[in-house]
Amino acid sequence: MRCEVVAIGTELLLGQITDTNSTWIGEQLARIGIDSHYQVKVGDNFERIAACLRLALERSDAVICCGGLGPTQDDITREVIAEVAGVGLLRDPEVERRIIERFAARGRTMTENNRRQADIPDGATVIPQMPGTAPGFMCPVGDRTIYAVPGVPSEMRQMMEGFVLPDLRRRSGTVAVIRSRTLRTWGHSESGLAEILAGRIEALDRTGNPTLAFLASGIEGLKVRITAKAPDEAEAERIIAGEEERVRALLGEIVFGVDDQTMEAVIVERLRAEGRTLAVAESLTGGLVSTRLSAADPEMATFVGGWTRPWAPAGTAPSLPGPERAKRMASDVRAAHEADVSIAATGPLPGEQAAPGTVFMAIATARETVAHEAALPGDPPQVREYAVINLLNTLRRALIGERAADPAGRERPGTS
Amino acid sequence: MRCEVVAIGTELLLGQITDTNSTWIGEQLARIGIDSHYQVKVGDNFERIAACLRLALERSDAVICCGGLGPTQDDITREVIAEVAGVGLLRDPEVERRIIERFAARGRTMTENNRRQADIPDGATVIPQMPGTAPGFMCPVGDRTIYAVPGVPSEMRQMMEGFVLPDLRRRSGTVAVIRSRTLRTWGHSESGLAEILAGRIEALDRTGNPTLAFLASGIEGLKVRITAKAPDEAEAERIIAGEEERVRALLGEIVFGVDDQTMEAVIVERLRAEGRTLAVAESLTGGLVSTRLSAADPEMATFVGGWTRPWAPAGTAPSLPGPERAKRMASDVRAAHEADVSIAATGPLPGEQAAPGTVFMAIATARETVAHEAALPGDPPQVREYAVINLLNTLRRALIGERAADPAGRERPGTS
Repeated sequence: MRCEVVAIGTELLLGQITDTNSTWIGEQLARIGIDSHYQVKVGDNFERIAACLRLALERSDAVICCGGLGPTQDDITREVIAEVAGVGLLRDPEVERRIIERFAARGRTMTENNRRQADIPDGATVIPQMPGTAPGFMCPVGDRTIYAVPGVPSEMRQMMEGFVLPDLRRRSGTVAVIRSRTLRTWGHSESGLAEILAGRIEALDRTGNPTLAFLASGIEGLKVRITAKAPDEAEAERIIAGEEERVRALLGEIVFGVDDQTMEAVIVERLRAEGRTLAVAESLTGGLVSTRLSAADPEMATFVGGWTRPWAPAGTAPSLPGPERAKRMASDVRAAHEADVSIAATGPLPGEQAAPGTVFMAIATARETVAHEAALPGDPPQVREYAVINLLNTLRRALIGERAADPAGRERPGTS
Repeated sequence: MRCEVVAIGTELLLGQITDTNSTWIGEQLARIGIDSHYQVKVGDNFERIAACLRLALERSDAVICCGGLGPTQDDITREVIAEVAGVGLLRDPEVERRIIERFAARGRTMTENNRRQADIPDGATVIPQMPGTAPGFMCPVGDRTIYAVPGVPSEMRQMMEGFVLPDLRRRSGTVAVIRSRTLRTWGHSESGLAEILAGRIEALDRTGNPTLAFLASGIEGLKVRITAKAPDEAEAERIIAGEEERVRALLGEIVFGVDDQTMEAVIVERLRAEGRTLAVAESLTGGLVSTRLSAADPEMATFVGGWTRPWAPAGTAPSLPGPERAKRMASDVRAAHEADVSIAATGPLPGEQAAPGTVFMAIATARETVAHEAALPGDPPQVREYAVINLLNTLRRALIGERAADPAGRERPGTS
């Protein structure tokens, strides 16, 4: 079964708003195993909407039509669908009653335009969910179906989840379950990953289940998505777990997390399990590291303190080299917050000779303070973003290495 | 002249990433007066990409094709365009040389897949801008044109601004200039703004030039966009300036900035002009305020220091009420950094009675320390985001009010 998404609204084409509805709908369709080969955006124009719907009905079994159900003159989705289905519009008294009630409840006066929202193509079924004043509906066109839902994201989602997705699922008669898991990696290029996994991907191509796909997530690294199709949840889970093990064996420590797990969440989780605390001093990264760590630890139980400040500690010779400055920042912030571990990031001082994008980083523990240096690509905001993830990954690798170097660490209470 | 946007990538259809490239491209096309009637998303499938391109070439004069120029097997945009244009692919030696250089500079090894990126349809022109390893190109198909740009947003934008948009503009031979300016507001609802501006919008509807439109930008407030069409730049500018004056007179202090000006940029600019410094202490907002201020002032010349820490100063009675805690944080951070002004934000302590979403804020100057309290809507991450903009706006209004209350302030050197 194939389902196409048509998003309607001139504001989408003009770039005034981003069409996140289609993103969400695409994700839901994939989850229930329905193919979506095309997604189209079209403006509030009768002929062009009609052309898109006709084409979509040719190449797909169902069409989800999103937007253009509001009360203004621009909102013509109802009329276009009726035209394409070759039927007239009928005012639905029950929908009209609900719109009137909605207005009465808010103490607002209703216009004829608002009543127009109750006009539904003859033969269409009104979607029972109606969180706003725009009704959604399902309109048959021959053996195909058009679902019309409003463009307001919360209203659209409620109708999709309550009616459209279950209906599509029933029609498709799918029994298969599709599940996926994403392994998040940092430190390799897409082609590097592709090379490491080439043999595995080739082997999987022969069976087609599970599949592996790469997804770039910009500065946050690359994701490897494992997707499995199975008759039930448990079997899909088993296939994914087996594949995950194989992929992890190939990729090793560059895998830092799974699905929505962020680098900072992994770090906070590990330190928390070990009962250790972390402090941060940043100049170049301007608060970004603290922001990410505090989002992962809002109570600030593990991440106990952050400084954002230019490099200018009283009484320090300005000629201290970059790596030493980073080390000093790390040890100062660690001492001030009585933290077990600390990290610091700073850049070159004005006039200091350094390659473009140079970042000085340091990690301090009770045992030692180590400096790292990197030359990162991009313009200053990109260098800053890149420095954040670099510093976090350096800490993550250090925490892994520390445990590897110190097998006693494995025996610490609570260590996973 | 009509231009269609085709975004290529299965990950777009599966909802794994949102197609913000088309949004941005749509906005740029509108700015230069080129109509874009359709935007299409299609997966990494040869036949379907070809079908989309053929349809786009039928109904539009130019097609911007975004994505699928990477080094992996999925990346087939080059091949499809060559097929649609009825030509072969040729390896461009100059592009190949640039890719090799890029790899050498990063000390990475290059694979045959990376070399494939230098394959360009015969007769196509390589776009000179090439910030990554994927070249963009312009390929003629009869009297129509396909522009191929990478899906990496920064690379796509550089090629669009440097080559595609100027080329489209030249081809379209547009004489009219369309310019717009956005006034950024904070503190009013959309219906509130609409009510204030209703009379003005009605008056403008009669002439159609300039126009006013509202754009929501989430937690960052609402934008009022003024768009003017004129035979030349100077005339468009004159129309916009006149309208801006009228709109500002109606909206007053809720307008905080123009176009890309952020709240924090406005604050930093004002303090810098007055030669004053700012420090920040945050617990609830976890580094977000520092991050935004340091982005506006990367040298940290005006924003001189930030603390991210839980509320636990040594020797303080834990029963200190919220507003007092915020004031203490503000005065402590101001003293520590010898700043002229400081701000602080914190939330209720565990077990402390407070309405959901309560935020305690304070602003400290040499003269006084004032606390503010707000109950903000949403889940904890939303409250955090909302608290940031709330605190920044409170500071902005205080700086305006300070100057109004103290006319001598106007005489300070450098005050604008």
